[in-house]
Amino acid sequence: MTSMPSLPSFPSSVRIVEVGPRDGLQNEKNVVPTAERIALINGLRQAGLRHIEVGSFVSPKWVPQMADTPQVLAALPPMADGRYAVLVPNERGMDAAEACPNIGEIAIFAAASESFSHKNINCSIAESLERFAPVVARAQANGWAVRGYVSCVMGCPYEGDVPVQRVAEVAAALYRMGCYEISLGDTVGVGTPRLAKSMIEAVAAEVPVTALAAHFHDTYGQALANLLAVLELGVAVIDSSVAGLGGCPYAAGAAGNVATEDVVYMLHGMGIETGLDLMALAVVGQRISSVVGRSTGSKVARAVLARGA
Amino acid sequence: MTSMPSLPSFPSSVRIVEVGPRDGLQNEKNVVPTAERIALINGLRQAGLRHIEVGSFVSPKWVPQMADTPQVLAALPPMADGRYAVLVPNERGMDAAEACPNIGEIAIFAAASESFSHKNINCSIAESLERFAPVVARAQANGWAVRGYVSCVMGCPYEGDVPVQRVAEVAAALYRMGCYEISLGDTVGVGTPRLAKSMIEAVAAEVPVTALAAHFHDTYGQALANLLAVLELGVAVIDSSVAGLGGCPYAAGAAGNVATEDVVYMLHGMGIETGLDLMALAVVGQRISSVVGRSTGSKVARAVLARGA
Repeated sequence: MTSMPSLPSFPSSVRIVEVGPRDGLQNEKNVVPTAERIALINGLRQAGLRHIEVGSFVSPKWVPQMADTPQVLAALPPMADGRYAVLVPNERGMDAAEACPNIGEIAIFAAASESFSHKNINCSIAESLERFAPVVARAQANGWAVRGYVSCVMGCPYEGDVPVQRVAEVAAALYRMGCYEISLGDTVGVGTPRLAKSMIEAVAAEVPVTALAAHFHDTYGQALANLLAVLELGVAVIDSSVAGLGGCPYAAGAAGNVATEDVVYMLHGMGIETGLDLMALAVVGQRISSVVGRSTGSKVARAVLARGA
Repeated sequence: MTSMPSLPSFPSSVRIVEVGPRDGLQNEKNVVPTAERIALINGLRQAGLRHIEVGSFVSPKWVPQMADTPQVLAALPPMADGRYAVLVPNERGMDAAEACPNIGEIAIFAAASESFSHKNINCSIAESLERFAPVVARAQANGWAVRGYVSCVMGCPYEGDVPVQRVAEVAAALYRMGCYEISLGDTVGVGTPRLAKSMIEAVAAEVPVTALAAHFHDTYGQALANLLAVLELGVAVIDSSVAGLGGCPYAAGAAGNVATEDVVYMLHGMGIETGLDLMALAVVGQRISSVVGRSTGSKVARAVLARGA
């Protein structure tokens, strides 16, 4: 007879943080018209998402895809039961953000690898943390939540392996600085499940696991397996990108963010609630994929749309 | 400080059964020239594979892609330290197989869903088992190993849900009939990790877990997560297809077999041995993908080949 499986204690619900309109589109070659970016965000909200990263205040010289973030924010309907989030790298970005409506949260981003920090934001990890302190103070004065990203948590495109203790130190520094949540990014997508568990366990020794989010890229196809591994440890917040928007800047033609549809399919299949409408997500993802000029990066979307279900 | 992760007891090594030259190519639209199919099998052997499904003796009217199986077998070098396997559906197929060299194993295939059995092999599950009995007897007389497939173990394209107890019954019948190993196929790729565990636990109550193999399709992107879930239960044999050869016949344009490269990357990353050379696999997969006229379905292959590593 069938015995009941001896399952670890998965969370009963997971909050999805949708990063497609920012992290996704920022890494697509084609710049998307402002009206399409707004339609994407509205479509995601209608599919049930309540935590959406909608833009950034990084210099348009570096990230032209996000130059219209003020116009996007101005066009969005207020979201009383959720939050629009924007990336703010420094006080100059904060000046621009403070002139915009509809911001409920900002994100700041540090790396767990010195080389990556230098190449990505042109300063050391310690310098980046110093730079963020006044940004966090101003966000808090505005009543905005602050979320911290740590990149390269399972490997660095320049350094290779990254010690999990280093990840824990940077995460702890961001948490002490006032971030309510730390999103742990496998920026190059090289992690595998054992490492994902070790990494989360190291960080959870410094920061409550309820304040951790998994931001795993699918470059090596490992994202869902890694997410399964850390769900077992109690991680209940997952960053993902509809249609897998956003390639990998370190390997042209390779995948980047894990697709929201694929994550949601797994969670729903396991009886874990997300509050999201999977078919609506697939349709929204299909539309934005055609706008950026490629097929959807979500296998679930391809399967359900091919079946015409 | 980092605590050691509380990990389940994963196997220390996994045997990969490569199904690309048969299950993969059979589901590709373009028929591959015999010389290319032979080159593929030789390339896979050189990458370390020792268990390769090379063809089938199904009527060429139904599966024209496998019509050259006798020529392929005649051209292969003997593999003393491994086995070439072929699908043999009935005694007529066995007549043809017995005229060929280099066969070390045959596979027979049953379904866990009555509707699928009728549509796929035009008989009931019970009738299919009766039909296999003399095939198994002749294989054993030839000194050939016999492997049993069960399809639709986590869902059926016609019936939807499939009870895990039904999977266990069919697996047990094949095992009693003399199959040394039962390969459990998520033919439509709809399974998720909790169900994968429940299914394996149900089957393992009837058949030793050491005699079970996981044959999971990646149509919904779930294959690696499902494999991780069943590795935890002691499953140590995985079927996969280089470059993810073989689409899904039930959803045009969607993925089929999980890519061998992606499985091997996960296993090696977890310290689980396979004896395989990942880069050699990626190169072999790249070549056959260009022969069938599409890009590789392996994310690992795309990433490592894009990096030029």
